[in-house]
Amino acid sequence: MTARGTLYGLGIGPGDPELITLKALKYLTTADVLAYPAPEEGESLARSIVAEHLDGHHQELVVRMPMTAARFPAQEVYDWAATEIGEHLDAGRHVAVLCEGDPFFYGSFMYLFGRMSETHNVEVVPGVSSLMACATTLGAPLAARNDVLSVVPATLEETELRARITDSDAVAVIKVGRHLEKVRGVLSELGLADRARYVEHATMSNQRILPLAAVPEHGAPYFSMILVHGRGNAWHV
Amino acid sequence: MTARGTLYGLGIGPGDPELITLKALKYLTTADVLAYPAPEEGESLARSIVAEHLDGHHQELVVRMPMTAARFPAQEVYDWAATEIGEHLDAGRHVAVLCEGDPFFYGSFMYLFGRMSETHNVEVVPGVSSLMACATTLGAPLAARNDVLSVVPATLEETELRARITDSDAVAVIKVGRHLEKVRGVLSELGLADRARYVEHATMSNQRILPLAAVPEHGAPYFSMILVHGRGNAWHV
Repeated sequence: MTARGTLYGLGIGPGDPELITLKALKYLTTADVLAYPAPEEGESLARSIVAEHLDGHHQELVVRMPMTAARFPAQEVYDWAATEIGEHLDAGRHVAVLCEGDPFFYGSFMYLFGRMSETHNVEVVPGVSSLMACATTLGAPLAARNDVLSVVPATLEETELRARITDSDAVAVIKVGRHLEKVRGVLSELGLADRARYVEHATMSNQRILPLAAVPEHGAPYFSMILVHGRGNAWHV
Repeated sequence: MTARGTLYGLGIGPGDPELITLKALKYLTTADVLAYPAPEEGESLARSIVAEHLDGHHQELVVRMPMTAARFPAQEVYDWAATEIGEHLDAGRHVAVLCEGDPFFYGSFMYLFGRMSETHNVEVVPGVSSLMACATTLGAPLAARNDVLSVVPATLEETELRARITDSDAVAVIKVGRHLEKVRGVLSELGLADRARYVEHATMSNQRILPLAAVPEHGAPYFSMILVHGRGNAWHV
């Protein structure tokens, strides 16, 4: 009987290929199968982050995410991917799933983890998340000392968003994308727009930092984040 | 005139030596001087994380932190370290400062950054933080979908701590250490003790996961964290 393979959920970092860990690189190199998300058409960002380390020995499993207006990705895609991955594992092949940032920080890896962790060997390797990458890019501590740091998805309803930002010391608004106008409106109302700092594609070659007011309407990609320090001066030490 | 050196703030990850990034390793290897925190007596945890990569070519600058009851470390230590580091940089030497986890996530690197970023070249390399390491260790997503994730220092006053935890979806209580009883009391009152998960030294060789009730009084080290999901089931997908 063949020993079953292990499923590795690899945090490959925020985009700069050098921000992968030694551990993720080790499992990437030794895996037999590489699985990664990709848009319905076109290249996979996750694959491009690790491309320089690929020597052609992997079988590749592309998990294409249908474009959808729904808030969460179609669960059928994960059912299919879990079945495919399960067959590789049962045949004794190790499978590495590439996860941008960290697998357990708002990552879609949880959908595979939830389907497979009770039936298969799963090992998760944490990665440098976009949260830390954005703080580095902006050149300012994310949080310090007694700060409460709130990570707030821009997908929240406006009222909820306002309440969460109001109550916080330091805020990272993630998944800005098509929610830019709502977030910008809330920050303006709260008098925080001027101290909000916007960054997109942090650590990638197309990284951009803009004053919040300068971001064009409908111009924020999914990989964008807004950092605000409500009390204003934690990084002036 | 000698070109001035660069100060590198290197996130070296949560403890597992394999969780360092390629980028941090590159700058570590090419630096002339290695600076790192250490207790008043004894070994430096940060240095031990990277020890296997050291070949003896570095000058080493040990920044010893006096034990103190004060909430924040003595600023004189950072004044001294900044002066020492500044002299190396001015003489053209590159200096790598080792930062456990991520430099800008509640890290003491901000005290050096605040003193030196306006007068010297400073480059910060983000790292895998203890937050991501703990989630991996506990085998559960930290936050997902529309969750607001609150990172709450255990150093807060009890009333404030209670308010912050009450308002959150997912909570990471950091810097537990000598604040264990206060945090445990608050979580019990809120009926959250049973679903709180405690981990210390995540990813290190002495890593431990305990039910919150089983942690001995005065038994939590500084490097311990409690994760709670207030709404209970984000990771059951």
